[in-house]
Amino acid sequence: MASLSKTLYAIVAGVGSGTGRSVALRFAKAYPVVLLARHNDSYDSIVSDIQKQGGQAVGISADTSDPESLNAAFEAIKKEHPDKKLAAAIFNVSGGLTFKSFLELKVEDIDASHAANGRSFFNFAQKVLPQLLESVDDAPNPPTLLVTGATASVRGSARFGPFAAGKFAVRALSQSLAREFGPQGVHVAHAIIDGVIDIPRTKGYNVNDGKPDGKIAPDAIAESYWYLHTQHRSAFTQELDIRPYVEKF
Amino acid sequence: MASLSKTLYAIVAGVGSGTGRSVALRFAKAYPVVLLARHNDSYDSIVSDIQKQGGQAVGISADTSDPESLNAAFEAIKKEHPDKKLAAAIFNVSGGLTFKSFLELKVEDIDASHAANGRSFFNFAQKVLPQLLESVDDAPNPPTLLVTGATASVRGSARFGPFAAGKFAVRALSQSLAREFGPQGVHVAHAIIDGVIDIPRTKGYNVNDGKPDGKIAPDAIAESYWYLHTQHRSAFTQELDIRPYVEKF
Amino acid sequence: MASLSKTLYAIVAGVGSGTGRSVALRFAKAYPVVLLARHNDSYDSIVSDIQKQGGQAVGISADTSDPESLNAAFEAIKKEHPDKKLAAAIFNVSGGLTFKSFLELKVEDIDASHAANGRSFFNFAQKVLPQLLESVDDAPNPPTLLVTGATASVRGSARFGPFAAGKFAVRALSQSLAREFGPQGVHVAHAIIDGVIDIPRTKGYNVNDGKPDGKIAPDAIAESYWYLHTQHRSAFTQELDIRPYVEKF
Amino acid sequence: MASLSKTLYAIVAGVGSGTGRSVALRFAKAYPVVLLARHNDSYDSIVSDIQKQGGQAVGISADTSDPESLNAAFEAIKKEHPDKKLAAAIFNVSGGLTFKSFLELKVEDIDASHAANGRSFFNFAQKVLPQLLESVDDAPNPPTLLVTGATASVRGSARFGPFAAGKFAVRALSQSLAREFGPQGVHVAHAIIDGVIDIPRTKGYNVNDGKPDGKIAPDAIAESYWYLHTQHRSAFTQELDIRPYVEKF
Repeated sequence: MASLSKTLYAIVAGVGSGTGRSVALRFAKAYPVVLLARHNDSYDSIVSDIQKQGGQAVGISADTSDPESLNAAFEAIKKEHPDKKLAAAIFNVSGGLTFKSFLELKVEDIDASHAANGRSFFNFAQKVLPQLLESVDDAPNPPTLLVTGATASVRGSARFGPFAAGKFAVRALSQSLAREFGPQGVHVAHAIIDGVIDIPRTKGYNVNDGKPDGKIAPDAIAESYWYLHTQHRSAFTQELDIRPYVEKF
Repeated sequence: MASLSKTLYAIVAGVGSGTGRSVALRFAKAYPVVLLARHNDSYDSIVSDIQKQGGQAVGISADTSDPESLNAAFEAIKKEHPDKKLAAAIFNVSGGLTFKSFLELKVEDIDASHAANGRSFFNFAQKVLPQLLESVDDAPNPPTLLVTGATASVRGSARFGPFAAGKFAVRALSQSLAREFGPQGVHVAHAIIDGVIDIPRTKGYNVNDGKPDGKIAPDAIAESYWYLHTQHRSAFTQELDIRPYVEKF
Repeated sequence: MASLSKTLYAIVAGVGSGTGRSVALRFAKAYPVVLLARHNDSYDSIVSDIQKQGGQAVGISADTSDPESLNAAFEAIKKEHPDKKLAAAIFNVSGGLTFKSFLELKVEDIDASHAANGRSFFNFAQKVLPQLLESVDDAPNPPTLLVTGATASVRGSARFGPFAAGKFAVRALSQSLAREFGPQGVHVAHAIIDGVIDIPRTKGYNVNDGKPDGKIAPDAIAESYWYLHTQHRSAFTQELDIRPYVEKF
Repeated sequence: MASLSKTLYAIVAGVGSGTGRSVALRFAKAYPVVLLARHNDSYDSIVSDIQKQGGQAVGISADTSDPESLNAAFEAIKKEHPDKKLAAAIFNVSGGLTFKSFLELKVEDIDASHAANGRSFFNFAQKVLPQLLESVDDAPNPPTLLVTGATASVRGSARFGPFAAGKFAVRALSQSLAREFGPQGVHVAHAIIDGVIDIPRTKGYNVNDGKPDGKIAPDAIAESYWYLHTQHRSAFTQELDIRPYVEKF
């Protein structure tokens, strides 16, 4: 951990027991990290795990769907890291998943998906992009905004309407931001996570006939995110898919 | 006009001077039509034009982003057509278009695009799908829900973030509804309109070097919608693109 | 049949018992048609059926994968219709379908798919595009080159490698031709036929749980092709999908 | 170079001054590599560069479009590495690029693109997949088949017809192989290289307004390939795009 950056930090929005946690632990090998989640039980143990591995982390409670809440969080971040620049921001927030017949849904379902997905990513990107732009000249790796997508980002399956609407919207924004901020030196990339992630909550799921590694290891996702962060600016990836070797697609 | 249906009607949400107007006039050759727009100046002249061509039309003011407003509109429709079934519903609402740098936008911009696109289509689909399902056994053409998309439905261009987010979301929903309601006999189709439409507002636009037919004739879009409506259920199209012969793509 | 064109003709390459036959019968309502197939048993009965419905048709044996064979065919066509211009050309040739593990295949399999798909379409397009360009100023409908694709045009499924390679190649060419010849007034469109077609050969197939209209009616495909042919040049469709209402996708 | 594998080797087909060379040098840090090219001037200097960096390499002349030539090459490889298993195979062959109006092309142009792209990849995959399958149980990284694509792999631009046909075909095959051999433990991935590569031949090209890093560094592509090779089998990427930060897309 001798290499922990003294001038840069990273931020991960949407941490819990899966992708967000692994990404935070991975980026914490290089940078102090800020963890955002609505409730502290989502980040407390990750902060502790990062400290155990010799890193620095702070958790901040924030609701990314609410610009005011996010403003408050970023003021707290500024106090935490007054002189550091932002190396990488990872948007791993999700929500709005329902699995009902369309006619059983309420308008609140599509609104909830918008709030958790499109609006949350919009708010988060508005806060981090000015900071990422400031790092372009100095940071060893191009400043990076990484976005977690899902199968529903590219496919509107039956009974997944509102969730897919939210995920498609995030993907649209990520493309638009890549096209606007890429030429300014910020790397915006979108990952389509196509499979069940191997986390405590999915322990009992019978996925891919129970074959070994039939669920996605969140640490493996984190390695992909780290790789994207380290790409040379002459060779940015805007989108990649991630799925288990045994996944049907 | 001898063939105007006595048992079926059609509804077009989002009428004005372009696609909505032409689609209304086209479907009014076969069905009495209901026109929805926020303000009566958007539909008054269309109602009159439809009557001149021997058809029947009624305009109803409604805000598709507001479920209450839409409920009131559909009660009015029920009074207008107490015994008719729904043959076709066209969602031609749009909104939320901004053309600014992402960092100049406000959260209201992404919310406005959600309201005009994803939420409006959600609300409209919730009202029309139960009626379309009721027509499956009787209507000569498969009951149809048609959705107007745009280039921004499949591409998040720089400075088009919120608009693309809204359009991607509508496309996601249209796919999800096609997969849920197609097998029940309702045809859900999405048209990607890729070009400038030839309407009074675009009269002065220099498009495609001013070549003849370089803007899309809204009557030509209407013919495509009518064709989609008449497709046999063994051969539904879920998506097609529409662009001028001289458009770059 | 009073309306059979005296100045224009149509050509359908790849006729048999399914899509090609239906398309030929449909276009024969408006134009004298030329049918191409490798063997006369593929077109003899179609010629006869077209004559029965009051149309004109001639069948010519040709191998579209062989430029020489195609040259001979087009000389025969010129004798048949010395003064007519070409209104529409439909490429419905296919081949190269294998369903084996990749390691059981031979190089002949990928070559056969290339010959039947990419090379055949290349050869056919080279012969018909000059003629279609000559019709641009006169023909009532924009001269049209229509191409039959399949699910394998957009998806490389396991064990479908060579076939998908061939179909992807045809789709690539169709896009390239649309972009080169569209601005010159020729409409190039590609249809993705996603489902089993209802023809004598598939009679026994249990498709979509045997539901009615669970196989695609070739006459319905033909209606889509005719519709594409009649699109206004300000509103060309480059691609559409066609599938039964009950098809999973 | 202490870590050079004693049990595994890698093979790169299609080496010259760009991507192939960089990929060979990158994989040569871990494995002895075999370089395939039609002529020895394409690989001689790379062999020498690899040896200078402490690696092992051998170049073999082969024409991937010709199964016999490839058979001979693989017999030579077997003599070179009688006891080693194959860790990774990279298909970087290309060809068939023309930039002419479609009507100026000859059938030889589409055949040449087929030979260089679809058929070459087919032949190469037939030789390497059996070897890659044999490495599944032992190799520290999942055995990998990597494929170089281009913008033309997903877009048929005007005047790029035959080249796009070839590239689309390779992509189709790569998907099909990923779906067949992924579940058997072999990682098949396809990279869409979207931009001009910075090699001696493109030195004078004015790309992206001459901005720094406006051409793709081939070493950066090589890093992406290496990263793909090291992905955990629970999190395979099937496709990613690579382009300069300033590239329009």
